[in-house]
Amino acid sequence: MAGNTFGNFFRVTTFGESHGTAIGGVIDGCPAGLKLDLDSIQSDLDRRKPGQSKITTQRKESDEFEILSGTFEETTLGSPIAFIIRNQDYKPSDYDNLKDVYRPSHADYTYDIKYGIRDYRGGGRSSARETAARVFAGAIAKQLIRNSQFAIRNLPLSIQAYVSQVGKIKLEKKYSELDLNKTESNIVRCPDEMVAKKMIERIEEVKKEGDTIGGIVTCVLQHVPPGLGEPVFDKLHADLAKAMMSINAAHGFDYGSGFEGVEMKGSRHNDLFEAANDDGDRTKIITKTNNSGGILGGISNGMDIYFRVAFKPVSTLMQTQQTVDRSGNMVEMKGKGRHDPCVVPRAVPIVEAMAAIVVADHLLRNRISKLYP
Amino acid sequence: MAGNTFGNFFRVTTFGESHGTAIGGVIDGCPAGLKLDLDSIQSDLDRRKPGQSKITTQRKESDEFEILSGTFEETTLGSPIAFIIRNQDYKPSDYDNLKDVYRPSHADYTYDIKYGIRDYRGGGRSSARETAARVFAGAIAKQLIRNSQFAIRNLPLSIQAYVSQVGKIKLEKKYSELDLNKTESNIVRCPDEMVAKKMIERIEEVKKEGDTIGGIVTCVLQHVPPGLGEPVFDKLHADLAKAMMSINAAHGFDYGSGFEGVEMKGSRHNDLFEAANDDGDRTKIITKTNNSGGILGGISNGMDIYFRVAFKPVSTLMQTQQTVDRSGNMVEMKGKGRHDPCVVPRAVPIVEAMAAIVVADHLLRNRISKLYP
Amino acid sequence: MAGNTFGNFFRVTTFGESHGTAIGGVIDGCPAGLKLDLDSIQSDLDRRKPGQSKITTQRKESDEFEILSGTFEETTLGSPIAFIIRNQDYKPSDYDNLKDVYRPSHADYTYDIKYGIRDYRGGGRSSARETAARVFAGAIAKQLIRNSQFAIRNLPLSIQAYVSQVGKIKLEKKYSELDLNKTESNIVRCPDEMVAKKMIERIEEVKKEGDTIGGIVTCVLQHVPPGLGEPVFDKLHADLAKAMMSINAAHGFDYGSGFEGVEMKGSRHNDLFEAANDDGDRTKIITKTNNSGGILGGISNGMDIYFRVAFKPVSTLMQTQQTVDRSGNMVEMKGKGRHDPCVVPRAVPIVEAMAAIVVADHLLRNRISKLYP
Amino acid sequence: MAGNTFGNFFRVTTFGESHGTAIGGVIDGCPAGLKLDLDSIQSDLDRRKPGQSKITTQRKESDEFEILSGTFEETTLGSPIAFIIRNQDYKPSDYDNLKDVYRPSHADYTYDIKYGIRDYRGGGRSSARETAARVFAGAIAKQLIRNSQFAIRNLPLSIQAYVSQVGKIKLEKKYSELDLNKTESNIVRCPDEMVAKKMIERIEEVKKEGDTIGGIVTCVLQHVPPGLGEPVFDKLHADLAKAMMSINAAHGFDYGSGFEGVEMKGSRHNDLFEAANDDGDRTKIITKTNNSGGILGGISNGMDIYFRVAFKPVSTLMQTQQTVDRSGNMVEMKGKGRHDPCVVPRAVPIVEAMAAIVVADHLLRNRISKLYP
Repeated sequence: MAGNTFGNFFRVTTFGESHGTAIGGVIDGCPAGLKLDLDSIQSDLDRRKPGQSKITTQRKESDEFEILSGTFEETTLGSPIAFIIRNQDYKPSDYDNLKDVYRPSHADYTYDIKYGIRDYRGGGRSSARETAARVFAGAIAKQLIRNSQFAIRNLPLSIQAYVSQVGKIKLEKKYSELDLNKTESNIVRCPDEMVAKKMIERIEEVKKEGDTIGGIVTCVLQHVPPGLGEPVFDKLHADLAKAMMSINAAHGFDYGSGFEGVEMKGSRHNDLFEAANDDGDRTKIITKTNNSGGILGGISNGMDIYFRVAFKPVSTLMQTQQTVDRSGNMVEMKGKGRHDPCVVPRAVPIVEAMAAIVVADHLLRNRISKLYP
Repeated sequence: MAGNTFGNFFRVTTFGESHGTAIGGVIDGCPAGLKLDLDSIQSDLDRRKPGQSKITTQRKESDEFEILSGTFEETTLGSPIAFIIRNQDYKPSDYDNLKDVYRPSHADYTYDIKYGIRDYRGGGRSSARETAARVFAGAIAKQLIRNSQFAIRNLPLSIQAYVSQVGKIKLEKKYSELDLNKTESNIVRCPDEMVAKKMIERIEEVKKEGDTIGGIVTCVLQHVPPGLGEPVFDKLHADLAKAMMSINAAHGFDYGSGFEGVEMKGSRHNDLFEAANDDGDRTKIITKTNNSGGILGGISNGMDIYFRVAFKPVSTLMQTQQTVDRSGNMVEMKGKGRHDPCVVPRAVPIVEAMAAIVVADHLLRNRISKLYP
Repeated sequence: MAGNTFGNFFRVTTFGESHGTAIGGVIDGCPAGLKLDLDSIQSDLDRRKPGQSKITTQRKESDEFEILSGTFEETTLGSPIAFIIRNQDYKPSDYDNLKDVYRPSHADYTYDIKYGIRDYRGGGRSSARETAARVFAGAIAKQLIRNSQFAIRNLPLSIQAYVSQVGKIKLEKKYSELDLNKTESNIVRCPDEMVAKKMIERIEEVKKEGDTIGGIVTCVLQHVPPGLGEPVFDKLHADLAKAMMSINAAHGFDYGSGFEGVEMKGSRHNDLFEAANDDGDRTKIITKTNNSGGILGGISNGMDIYFRVAFKPVSTLMQTQQTVDRSGNMVEMKGKGRHDPCVVPRAVPIVEAMAAIVVADHLLRNRISKLYP
Repeated sequence: MAGNTFGNFFRVTTFGESHGTAIGGVIDGCPAGLKLDLDSIQSDLDRRKPGQSKITTQRKESDEFEILSGTFEETTLGSPIAFIIRNQDYKPSDYDNLKDVYRPSHADYTYDIKYGIRDYRGGGRSSARETAARVFAGAIAKQLIRNSQFAIRNLPLSIQAYVSQVGKIKLEKKYSELDLNKTESNIVRCPDEMVAKKMIERIEEVKKEGDTIGGIVTCVLQHVPPGLGEPVFDKLHADLAKAMMSINAAHGFDYGSGFEGVEMKGSRHNDLFEAANDDGDRTKIITKTNNSGGILGGISNGMDIYFRVAFKPVSTLMQTQQTVDRSGNMVEMKGKGRHDPCVVPRAVPIVEAMAAIVVADHLLRNRISKLYP
């Protein structure tokens, strides 16, 4: 069973190699009757697309999508929604020299070992280009989960990610101290202008060196209805973890108090409940603190869900590196091609997309938890 | 689709409430012909069971298992292996006072919201008692993956977890500097005796205060054949992340360079390949460093896989806490029952078990990657 | 991926060998809040159990079940419902002579080839004893689907199967001409007393000869809400077909006009719509005829669903037969043990159970077809 | 969970509406390293395509496919194989009159009830045009299963379907008495020229009347390795039954002795084993008769697998019919459009395709049955 499908009810299958004919995907399980806003899909794709700023790769792809099925008069039919994005600015010949070479920290070697064959052009299936299909599917998931039926206290479910660290430059403020609407106001996607400036400078520095740098994306989900998540294995945060860790270059995930929480005592870590008001409505119970990150026992409790995703530095350098070829010979490899010096600015919409897919899936799954839904 | 099944080929379904009749599970997909060592299953269950030392809960459970099906003369038949562990030392009356109360940072509230009904006795399904079933299944998975056909360089696949942090007490040494065979030599399961002693003291301290503390478990997989992991969603580390995050109290996961790696430049982070020897055998290519944690593009590369799992402090305190009841009234709740002051010593075999299940699943999945397996 | 799980949302996994410790199963996905009637579960098990009449096998099994999890005060919790039925009257020594022999038209040979090992005692996993677990799960499914929320025109969903053919003795009347409440009034489970008498005589005849005979079970589902079935692969009748064909000894399935319908012209076969009344309620559209068997395009249309399942004659004879052993030598095999001369009387509750599981699954699946459920 | 995916290891997802932009699909799980013969894919599509003869619909579609991903130099990569077939000769305006009308025995009504929205143009997703995607996927499955590693006695696995009945005109000979290579020699796809002629005449007759007629397709699988099929639910014939019943217009399925077998006694029905030769090779055990249709206990035994699929008469007539519209009003509907008078000639490649997908899936599944594969 190959691993190109994510989700159970809102189920996304992606396909495509970086320098093949097209990438794309199929969404099976999007309920019928959702009126789609196609512009907002393109808008998310544009946030991810290459060549969008001086700190991203200069590969030029318009990343325009074509929907092949599953909609009628721009409304979902309940049948599979297939979409494709054709590859345009591919230069397979750029990669002829890589045919037999295993690039360090890339998937060339492992694909070769696993499959015995490999599309070496731009990483083939292992390229982060695949994530454009995720962003498309996530954009539809976002539209589904914003539907008023899922709102709590009349506030629609929202998902907002931003860059919280680049190399050693950290955004020390918590999400609740920030104006997340400012995230898109700069090219690194950090909602604090001062920190953003430093991050951009840092990225330009390493780029000049032909080097790369890692970073962290933080993501916040607000107004998530309580009840989402399926114990014991498909806990909401377990599915979020898998979703995030499946993104290229992701090396770590934590939510709520996360890795820092291990140093706390329970008496400080515990989130005390309180009634939001006195009308006896159980859905209005809240907690005073939120170290739990909005999830208790794997199920959302209505508080904000927040998590972090750590990304390693991009493996493609504009430097000469030693490596081996398919025959095990040592060879020297020169940096070439067009690549990102830091992945996190473009990872922001991908993190949002995967979070939206997880939440859409669980909103639907939760429809069958109780005899009377 | 409820979430009580994990794995695709080596597929584990668990069941049972903490104070119900029994817990247990079904393993569907264990290949036929595996001779089982029942003692080593019990041995892993004993490493997890309550009451094993002064720093764990004093609930007494022998945790003896009964295999109901799927084996014949102690060899697997290829049919489902069902097993149960009866609950013995349950005191439902201990929980009468909790019938209508939502314990802070527990799943009482979210289960009630999700299902509209709840087995309040000891947390019901949300109790970590469920993990005994995982340890059973993991023990069988371990026996499967140790099979000589999966060995590399004649070394059998091994999985070893240990406690690397309790509160602020960190084991600074890396796994490669430790003798992991010493892990079981102390009750906190830290392979460094000096650090272990401090950890035990720390746990006893917080226990005396009626408090609890968090911690980190590190896990190392050695001699994993290259080729495991199914891009793009079921990457090996993505499945490990989900497996780990599905364990009670887990709040974070990272592998390889993890969260620390984000501060590195690519030129330092990249793991350079080298040929292990000159016989042209591609499976003998290794890397000089291992920031990738043994996984490239979601597929194992034959190097050590290592990861960390962060656990929050246990939520049950022997202290009085404010909380609310089902009707939203503020109530005072006194600490009662028998609970762990720190979850990590008992989490060690659980982490190993979940890792073994993931690896078993992927070893089988990898049998169909190529036309000629 | 082993094949011991059926259903997607209402998901049943069974386990157990005929002469092992126990058989049983796990239901994952039964919504929370269903009050169970345990007596009616036992009642269905009794309809299937051996030794119930002179025309069934004389093996004695009380087939009493134990529920291990998933309920609290006899109400479903939304967590997995595990149950076991211990094997009692097993006589493994009866089977010592079969250890190396491949019984004709049994699964001995194919299990041996597939798994390389086999529990030869009573057929092991291939025994129809496994179907007791299906009947248990089906009994819970029946209780779920009878819930008033799924009723149409205030009539609860019903499932009734009966024997419509034994050997050449056919019940010529259609289900609509019969009083299906009379099915249980005789031991062969045919609602027409006259035909039932002939069937029983026929079965006694072949039994006396040490022989066996085949038969057909017809099943009728009434008051099924329109909208069930998931195109294009999980059409309602496709899932029913798989469910039925997975029952031991089943060799054929058809629904609606079935095999006879191929001889009709479209002008006769087509079911013309008419409005059940003039209140403009689309759910009240009906058809004048029902050659479609209540399913159009794989989706229920609110009319009666009816189908037939053909069962071959039981393979175990009380006669001497030629066969081969594991080494390929010709051997003579004498009839021995306790077996059914005709499978259909006991197949009636199994057919109902599998139909109930399919319908329960699709009732839940249909909750996510539309944006507003 | 929507139902547009079939198979577990060799997993096919199809998409597309009859008069939308394109139909197509994704195959996930085809092992890497399979060299594809693209011409033979087109050849199977041509056998299914409309307008191929005087007894099929005159809609003109070239049904040329485009492969978007998953191959490199015409060899499978192990990544998802996505393909599309653009719709060409669609005339949506043909269907304006059907916007609010429920055609008798079509899926218009049930789609409307289920989804609340419907692409009324040519049946949308419910159109048999979707089966072109199945034929594409089946063509690849055929190439996979013909691989020499799956051959038995050096004979490659083969799948051959043919028309065995049209209305009341039956091909009385069994498959073993026919030369199946003659199937493609006539437009009705019946390997007996005399019977074929009568069938064609019958179809032309009903066509002249503006009417339609049903039929039966028989399918034979030869040289299937023993061991395929996963008890207890995913028996080989259960999966074949589901696969066949999921094809548009299918109303019945039986295999081996099928519905006729119910009249036999066990002493006649049982297939006696014999050793094919005396070299002690268990895989060479055969049976003297084959009422079991090559499957015992749900697992292939190496003998021929044969089954029948019954198809109802096509619902679209060139006649005036009474029906209702969305508001429940009686309306008169005139026959219009381009349709098949009998579905079976074009169903032949579809039956083969679905059989190939089932067998490919089970060949891969069987790789994990045993510890040593």
